[in-house]
Amino acid sequence: MKTAFMIAYKGTRYAGWQVQDKFPSVQKTLQNAIEDLLGRSVKLSGCSRTDSGVHAREYWCHIDSLAGVPDEKLPLALNLRLPDDISVLKAVTVDDSFHSRYSAKGKQYVYVIRNSYIKDPFSPDTAYLYKKPLDADEITRIGAGYLGTHDFRSFMAARSKITDTVRTVTEFRAERDGEYIKIYVSANGFLYNMVRIMVGTVLDIISGRIRVGVAEIIERKERKAAGRTAPAQGLFLNRVFY
Amino acid sequence: MKTAFMIAYKGTRYAGWQVQDKFPSVQKTLQNAIEDLLGRSVKLSGCSRTDSGVHAREYWCHIDSLAGVPDEKLPLALNLRLPDDISVLKAVTVDDSFHSRYSAKGKQYVYVIRNSYIKDPFSPDTAYLYKKPLDADEITRIGAGYLGTHDFRSFMAARSKITDTVRTVTEFRAERDGEYIKIYVSANGFLYNMVRIMVGTVLDIISGRIRVGVAEIIERKERKAAGRTAPAQGLFLNRVFY
Repeated sequence: MKTAFMIAYKGTRYAGWQVQDKFPSVQKTLQNAIEDLLGRSVKLSGCSRTDSGVHAREYWCHIDSLAGVPDEKLPLALNLRLPDDISVLKAVTVDDSFHSRYSAKGKQYVYVIRNSYIKDPFSPDTAYLYKKPLDADEITRIGAGYLGTHDFRSFMAARSKITDTVRTVTEFRAERDGEYIKIYVSANGFLYNMVRIMVGTVLDIISGRIRVGVAEIIERKERKAAGRTAPAQGLFLNRVFY
Repeated sequence: MKTAFMIAYKGTRYAGWQVQDKFPSVQKTLQNAIEDLLGRSVKLSGCSRTDSGVHAREYWCHIDSLAGVPDEKLPLALNLRLPDDISVLKAVTVDDSFHSRYSAKGKQYVYVIRNSYIKDPFSPDTAYLYKKPLDADEITRIGAGYLGTHDFRSFMAARSKITDTVRTVTEFRAERDGEYIKIYVSANGFLYNMVRIMVGTVLDIISGRIRVGVAEIIERKERKAAGRTAPAQGLFLNRVFY
């Protein structure tokens, strides 16, 4: 048996999930808290790398053994040992066959845009300030071109080495909530920077910087066909499907 | 004519609105931005002092002369000169008779409680984490005792020197929004720490720490009759009525 953790974090201060030599990572910070609580070293595996500055509302990770502390006591005990910007929401005992990354059937991200010419002092780190008025329905309409199974090579950071770039996108839907627009993106898997490039491309199509549609960009299969990478601070891992 | 500004700020980094010798204040920070833009010194007056760590969604202040820059250009021009946690939402030209403090007919605050035994990594500075389950309707019911015109001396920080402590409270209403509870409090004016003591007292009545009702505490007219001062980080000035 293993122990799996559902956590949330504000990614601003971190170089992403993955342990990095020089910068604080969520993985290292949480691993330290678990090891401090259990008094032994553990191997902590996560459901995905996230980029520097990206947040998570629900991120799953696990240790390769049982924690040995009752599941219901783990969140509070670990949260006492964690900084304000990381929280353990839940701990559950799972079969040895479970792996937070390989067992995941898909994920949902949400990209948050503050769509106003006025900045919000409460969201500089948790939304992308975009000044020109946007229409949520137009975003959804353009993004419909992403739905389905495609080779998303055009939407992968150029430096990524991954060769299997076919993914199935099941949701690309924008909703307005006052001066905020939330874009929900679900897929069976994501390439490096994929959501941020998908969002940046739709914004570039709307602004006229790109004059072709999403289907044509997918077809091109090269990063330079797509648009900008939208900034990290608007992106949240929202759910992992198992 | 004068220029009035509607601003919002996250108060975490500030010793409140009012200029302080040793700590950064919202007033001083905004005044510097205005003076930098206009190239002359101005006298900036606000609608209220706010405590250290308290936030504002809508705070009004004014300068004792016309800015001389078109009202619609002021928010962007000032926001470029302000840190992330202060934003000018609007600027309007007003009569000389306007004073952001003395012209105010009343104010609405909102006090935000995260009611969960799990902390939220996105709100450590913008909500009070209260672990025992709360019922919003019970808060509203107990707080109904505040409504009306009363001497609120029991709900004023002991160190305050104010002698006229009669205020009219027109709203004390709690709403649940997921794991958050928002308590809206409106009055024609507020004493020092009044909202935080009102909220802390209701929580103390619910937890059984205080065994009398709000009416009896009002009647006692002394600070020690009331409950704790709820923490600053949950409090937002939400609206000013003119």
